[in-house]
Amino acid sequence: MEYCFGVDIGGTTVKMGLFSAEGELIHKWEIKTQTQNEGERILPDVAESILREMDERDITAGQVLGVGVGIPAPVNSEGIVQNTANLGWGYKDVKGELSKLLSGLEVRAGNDANVAALGEMWMGGGQGRKNVVMVTLGTGVGGGIIHNGRIVVGENGAGGEIGHICVNYEEKEKCGCGKTGCLEQYASATGIARLARRRLAKYHEQTILNREDISAKTVFDAVKKKDEVAIKIAEEFGVYLGHALANIAVIFDPAVIVIGGGVSRAGEVLLPFIEKPFRERAFFANQNTEFALAMLGNDAGIYGAAKLVLDE
Amino acid sequence: MEYCFGVDIGGTTVKMGLFSAEGELIHKWEIKTQTQNEGERILPDVAESILREMDERDITAGQVLGVGVGIPAPVNSEGIVQNTANLGWGYKDVKGELSKLLSGLEVRAGNDANVAALGEMWMGGGQGRKNVVMVTLGTGVGGGIIHNGRIVVGENGAGGEIGHICVNYEEKEKCGCGKTGCLEQYASATGIARLARRRLAKYHEQTILNREDISAKTVFDAVKKKDEVAIKIAEEFGVYLGHALANIAVIFDPAVIVIGGGVSRAGEVLLPFIEKPFRERAFFANQNTEFALAMLGNDAGIYGAAKLVLDE
Repeated sequence: MEYCFGVDIGGTTVKMGLFSAEGELIHKWEIKTQTQNEGERILPDVAESILREMDERDITAGQVLGVGVGIPAPVNSEGIVQNTANLGWGYKDVKGELSKLLSGLEVRAGNDANVAALGEMWMGGGQGRKNVVMVTLGTGVGGGIIHNGRIVVGENGAGGEIGHICVNYEEKEKCGCGKTGCLEQYASATGIARLARRRLAKYHEQTILNREDISAKTVFDAVKKKDEVAIKIAEEFGVYLGHALANIAVIFDPAVIVIGGGVSRAGEVLLPFIEKPFRERAFFANQNTEFALAMLGNDAGIYGAAKLVLDE
Repeated sequence: MEYCFGVDIGGTTVKMGLFSAEGELIHKWEIKTQTQNEGERILPDVAESILREMDERDITAGQVLGVGVGIPAPVNSEGIVQNTANLGWGYKDVKGELSKLLSGLEVRAGNDANVAALGEMWMGGGQGRKNVVMVTLGTGVGGGIIHNGRIVVGENGAGGEIGHICVNYEEKEKCGCGKTGCLEQYASATGIARLARRRLAKYHEQTILNREDISAKTVFDAVKKKDEVAIKIAEEFGVYLGHALANIAVIFDPAVIVIGGGVSRAGEVLLPFIEKPFRERAFFANQNTEFALAMLGNDAGIYGAAKLVLDE
């Protein structure tokens, strides 16, 4: 039997999975991410954990097709990172170093959001399709573009940075990236809460929303109870996101757009708010683009990382 | 010696090129595009012309790596067209039919704008790079995205339709596609003329522009003579195009953006108008994206078509 490993390195934990070559998740576990001393322990810890797992299950190196790794930073097509925001690493040859620690096992590395998109294409909301746009609505807005089954990595490993498309040239407040009007300012969990606070400050409408407890979750909970103010906030969010996705679709022509991240836990209620403005603005060739919710949750990263090594 | 053919099918002529496997254009010629009777003669005419060329030069089928074809319509990854605006074809299995007419020679087909982008990557303004965005400013705005050396085809063969990104949600006039606010309405040759006419109607400024003879060419000719009104029109064009390209770059992370089409004949004077608003809006990871003018002119299509068959 043949195996591969999927590793999803985050700022606090490293998620790890042992997969069969057919994509069955056999075992998943986590280790702590040791970011001190410029993150020098991260890759050795990952390697030790993989070698222990192989040892415990009597898996030989010859049975392991490889180890895929997702990293919260741009990763170029050679598996090299130039800098990270929260791992402590500066320049890091992830592919080269980890492969050496694993006695030459094949290693592939990619950006975590891109890798999660690959995972959703493989075994989640985009299953069976090869052209997938995934947008992850969390604290920020991340994303990944899968073209013909492969991640669009880009020249600097910065492909798929959907959150930093400009959707509002009139915006005065700054995005975390330093620009203004980024999609992330309207479609992330924090962005939705910001839209809600703006609306509540501007209008004095009757609503079940509690001004002291505004979040993407409380907004969509109120939408489910048919609160009209919450519905207007969701509509505003949907216009920004739907129009941005129509512009992405006209360049990429995806089969399916997968919506993931914490905000997507609102469930099916979310999709019509995005789809309606998308259809209003989509190019005729993209009118059949489907929408789906992500299905793998926090496991998308390990699935996608494993898939990285299963592609020839 | 090994050869390949590049074929660029247009509404009035078919451009054809014989190339060495190393990319040298050995001979180029044109035939008429016979669009009558649902374009039934187009592929047989192409096949006869190729077979005659092979015969005249004593090239055997074994020496021909293949025939690449660019088509003015969406072409899916199997080389199939569903419909064409100006060839007379409805559904057409270009790859299958042309290969049969050529006794089984390998045939590949792609959208003409995408194929031209591949040509510019191979031997033109994007030479030496693998991640290229090409935007073609002609009667309309076309484009092609090359990721890791390959065309981004998309699910329906409609990838790279840059001209139909929405850049102005306030626009009232309709684009040819039926939507409003498409990039094509501001950055094509006709779009630039429209911006010029709008400005001349709105303001009564002193200018060397002749209201009776407004075109993209007369605007950029006046820019070269430092006419301030023409410069303002070029700036408006550049903001629409530069901002759209910044949004494309944040998803694709290209090494270089190549500007082609009739408008690009204005030359180097064009680029700063596009680059300045691009840099103002580009994501930090895309700040080093280069700009270049297309170099192959009307031959980009035959170069790119030939390159289609040289990729394994």
